[in-house]
Amino acid sequence: MLTKKGAATRRRIVDAAATEIRERGVANVTLEDVGRRSGTGKSQLFHYFPEGKEELLLAVARREAERVIEDQQPQLGSLTSWAAWGRWRDVVVERYRRQGVHCPLGVLITEIGRHTPAAQAVTRQLLDQWQAQLRLGIEQMRESGRIGPAIDPDRAAAALIAAIQGGVTILMSTNSAEHLEAALDLFLDHLRTAAPAPS
Amino acid sequence: MLTKKGAATRRRIVDAAATEIRERGVANVTLEDVGRRSGTGKSQLFHYFPEGKEELLLAVARREAERVIEDQQPQLGSLTSWAAWGRWRDVVVERYRRQGVHCPLGVLITEIGRHTPAAQAVTRQLLDQWQAQLRLGIEQMRESGRIGPAIDPDRAAAALIAAIQGGVTILMSTNSAEHLEAALDLFLDHLRTAAPAPS
Repeated sequence: MLTKKGAATRRRIVDAAATEIRERGVANVTLEDVGRRSGTGKSQLFHYFPEGKEELLLAVARREAERVIEDQQPQLGSLTSWAAWGRWRDVVVERYRRQGVHCPLGVLITEIGRHTPAAQAVTRQLLDQWQAQLRLGIEQMRESGRIGPAIDPDRAAAALIAAIQGGVTILMSTNSAEHLEAALDLFLDHLRTAAPAPS
Repeated sequence: MLTKKGAATRRRIVDAAATEIRERGVANVTLEDVGRRSGTGKSQLFHYFPEGKEELLLAVARREAERVIEDQQPQLGSLTSWAAWGRWRDVVVERYRRQGVHCPLGVLITEIGRHTPAAQAVTRQLLDQWQAQLRLGIEQMRESGRIGPAIDPDRAAAALIAAIQGGVTILMSTNSAEHLEAALDLFLDHLRTAAPAPS
């Protein structure tokens, strides 16, 4: 376990590496650059990342994955009304529209090796966390009677994650949010039309 | 324009390259390997692909994109009943389950360079063709009254393409078809529940 100070230093190194990689591309960033930006010496860098750049890249990937969730807050964490779902939908579209064709997390996953267990664990954890929050939102809407009992929260959340993932992948190759928006809107329409009729 | 014989030779070269790449990975395949497998001499290879490996890879990518559509036929081309949609859904799930974590087209797109105009044109054309066939299916279901007028065929087809793309991307990192199936099923449920009530 790291001390509080140690954890702060490690976090500073990871954030510095993330910024360098976002600005200049993963291939152009050296440990020296990260040291300079974070104000950390080489021995300190190796204290926190004994295996060097590989290990640091993985930590940066985890940080970028956290950001995907953070960027959707507080909306993602409080999906308790249709208005809240609509706001979250807009935040997602806006986030990915701004991001455009270059995905910081995707770059890192490709660099680490898409099929390595480490990269897959990062991807998997992000999808799991994201899906769990969406499922919670759907469950809350069901409990308050806004979504009908025909909707299975688990499968609906999985479908929604797939729709977002696909919309974002297409946006990254076309630079258009058209598919992402169509997928989110159809999904929300489905949740709404599966709602019980107003009494 | 190529003669009929020329087109056949070119096709044989592309198919040989596709098979070699599927079997041994794009990094390990040389033009010599492709020549050997297709029974084509070096001068013939350069006659059809004057720019060498780059140009051949692009032709193989186009061929792999065609296969994505072909593998869904005849189901994709005749989405005129709910039973037909169900069969097509099963074909898609089965195709990607079999393919697993390694996507031949994705490998080529990565090799050519995801952000190059050539790679984007291949991706774009595949998405456009696929979406057009799905839109046609939705339109036919609307015309026969099986899908209600609230469904916009264009946006619904875009949403479905996004859902498939995302489900497949997740399958490639988790080796599970769970998200793909959930997304397809929710989508089909939505088309069905937006159908006019039986009279």
